Amino acid sequence: MNNPMLSHISQVLSNIRLQKPLVHHITNYVTVNDCANIVLAIGGAPVMADDSEEVKEIVSISSALVLNIGTLNQRTIESMIIAGTQAKELKVPVIFDPVGAGASKLRTKTAERIIETLKPTVIRGNISEIKTLIGLSAKTRGVDAAEEDLSQGNTLQDVTKAVEQYSRRTGSVVAITGATDIISDGTRNCLIQNGHSMMSHVTGTGCMCTSLVGACCGATKDYFIGTVAGIAMMGIAGEIAFNRIKTDVDGNSSYCNYIIDAVYNLTDKTVEQQAKVTVA
Amino acid sequence: MNNPMLSHISQVLSNIRLQKPLVHHITNYVTVNDCANIVLAIGGAPVMADDSEEVKEIVSISSALVLNIGTLNQRTIESMIIAGTQAKELKVPVIFDPVGAGASKLRTKTAERIIETLKPTVIRGNISEIKTLIGLSAKTRGVDAAEEDLSQGNTLQDVTKAVEQYSRRTGSVVAITGATDIISDGTRNCLIQNGHSMMSHVTGTGCMCTSLVGACCGATKDYFIGTVAGIAMMGIAGEIAFNRIKTDVDGNSSYCNYIIDAVYNLTDKTVEQQAKVTVA
Amino acid sequence: MNNPMLSHISQVLSNIRLQKPLVHHITNYVTVNDCANIVLAIGGAPVMADDSEEVKEIVSISSALVLNIGTLNQRTIESMIIAGTQAKELKVPVIFDPVGAGASKLRTKTAERIIETLKPTVIRGNISEIKTLIGLSAKTRGVDAAEEDLSQGNTLQDVTKAVEQYSRRTGSVVAITGATDIISDGTRNCLIQNGHSMMSHVTGTGCMCTSLVGACCGATKDYFIGTVAGIAMMGIAGEIAFNRIKTDVDGNSSYCNYIIDAVYNLTDKTVEQQAKVTVA
Repeated sequence: MNNPMLSHISQVLSNIRLQKPLVHHITNYVTVNDCANIVLAIGGAPVMADDSEEVKEIVSISSALVLNIGTLNQRTIESMIIAGTQAKELKVPVIFDPVGAGASKLRTKTAERIIETLKPTVIRGNISEIKTLIGLSAKTRGVDAAEEDLSQGNTLQDVTKAVEQYSRRTGSVVAITGATDIISDGTRNCLIQNGHSMMSHVTGTGCMCTSLVGACCGATKDYFIGTVAGIAMMGIAGEIAFNRIKTDVDGNSSYCNYIIDAVYNLTDKTVEQQAKVTVA
Repeated sequence: MNNPMLSHISQVLSNIRLQKPLVHHITNYVTVNDCANIVLAIGGAPVMADDSEEVKEIVSISSALVLNIGTLNQRTIESMIIAGTQAKELKVPVIFDPVGAGASKLRTKTAERIIETLKPTVIRGNISEIKTLIGLSAKTRGVDAAEEDLSQGNTLQDVTKAVEQYSRRTGSVVAITGATDIISDGTRNCLIQNGHSMMSHVTGTGCMCTSLVGACCGATKDYFIGTVAGIAMMGIAGEIAFNRIKTDVDGNSSYCNYIIDAVYNLTDKTVEQQAKVTVA
Repeated sequence: MNNPMLSHISQVLSNIRLQKPLVHHITNYVTVNDCANIVLAIGGAPVMADDSEEVKEIVSISSALVLNIGTLNQRTIESMIIAGTQAKELKVPVIFDPVGAGASKLRTKTAERIIETLKPTVIRGNISEIKTLIGLSAKTRGVDAAEEDLSQGNTLQDVTKAVEQYSRRTGSVVAITGATDIISDGTRNCLIQNGHSMMSHVTGTGCMCTSLVGACCGATKDYFIGTVAGIAMMGIAGEIAFNRIKTDVDGNSSYCNYIIDAVYNLTDKTVEQQAKVTVA
């Protein structure tokens, strides 16, 4: 039953390379360079702009808006709200990455404000972040998922159910990425088994995944498919990159380069052959 | 007739390695790390400082000031004006990169303000940005040059003429970088044919080019030569780096590393052999 | 007599890999990505958060706090004070990197304020920065050590003495890194001969060293040992990375990746074999 999904994903990749969607980011200063390069790698065009005076205009020429609260502050939170409001007005998809939700009241509160005010098209986070937003008890460890949250007696089915319900409640496509990625738009649920555990040793693999989802949603009107496509391609890139690692010499820094390189060299064929996407 | 220009360029490189010019940047948070490393690669010393309280002092110990509005905001715009005013006072060359001019009123307005107030020594941008500043209709696509602007029925000669006139009007050395780079100081015009199209798939190659121009103008009093030198060396590095690419494996992330590496290993001899600089 | 020190260092490395200390950074936007990746490389977990409203909470879940004034501004200075005050209250070690102290009054003044107000657990800088703080005349060249300060007729013994006295005065572990690293806690003094001169051609090797010290101090209660461990491991990584350089092709950008990669692959055994630590 996978075949239709796989061709949908590779179609998104083709669209990106034809359309070069402009992806407006208001994001953190830690991983922003990698986010820009991964958007270029997949065939999109990144633009980073966060002054409240210009974000409305930048959104207006963009195909997607990525909001990432990795290093949020009062100034950029306001810019996110302005940009997001304009995006909704213009039907530009808003991809929200609630980095560190649960680690501080400011992050949780801001994430909730963005979700309530902007009703993002897509919300992508790790299990600790999404559990926090859903209202389940979570043990966010800074900006990383807490291991307890991964194995806390919840079956994959339980978590999928919770994600589906949260998606219905918010009206957003909701995605938890981890060893198994879970994506739901409230009706359709999907699991992805791509990726490699070494990705958690590179800063910003979550942010980069969100940026890829931004590029994908800028090139398809089916945002569930766009989300699945972005996450699957990030995982596939993580696998290809891992196979390139020279043991005992390469580490997480080379691995980061290899991941972006792998996205750059991704073909429709590779995507269709390697994607491990199942409907749940 | 190229020979004098080539030896001028390699002389600038030698000067940089002897003098280690300190290059003060007020720049964006997307590509700042690569800008710092490329300045180190060529033999200069980067310093990034943007608080209004300290920029005057930092300019005072610097050999060049790079102003880059890639992620401008109200706070850093004021710091740019303060730093630039001090630089002009002390005859420290000011290299201005009008990133995204035309993409928002704030960017266009700020670029115009910087040009009018500070009369930068050098203005370096892509064709969309410079056309915007000249007052020609342009189709800036975020921070990238719009393809329409490259082939819009303008001959290279037309564009060179416009750049020359704009240089006279502003008193700045003006440079458009692209497939062919065009540089004018209002009297002398020059074309450079170095570089590789893959450079447009790496975020910040424009910014890095501007930073190299900063290092070069910190090591020569002839800022036209300094600008030509910085742009030519960026292009040569792009070519050397491309030759290092392992097809189907390396992508834009490794390419970025290879470009900076190539600058690091640049020699006078390579520069003189590879520079494709013609007087126009 | 080195043996006890060497096993202490490798013990710190083992602790980090077991405990995954969360290292909160308020740092500059130039080298922040490399700082995050080097903390991940050694086995810690980085979190970057600088809004005044959230830093107290983030400190509360962290094992160490790194304060780095590389691109300080009024907003983040206040956040540093708030975070540092909370850290002292909770006995979370504060690692302070006075980047560019001496290059501007703002930097010198802020460094002094942080040292007086927060009494950091560790202060790590280059010779120009630490001489400035000690009150000796220094010739800071932007954010890099001035060569004059390295060879200004001071013997290593003189400098070690001054560092020891400054450590007593401040109550901080004080470290000067350079060709020879000097560390003192006022009672114990130590010299490290690891590292490679090419490290000074990579932006942020100082910042990354400070971040490693942060990870180490998050995993031991003996902060003198933690500081020695972080600095020694940075130097060892610089040596391993240099041996990987392909001459005439690799430059400072690949070297930076190789340094982080080397930290990722560091083992207890390598540390014990390569560390050149002497008690002074």
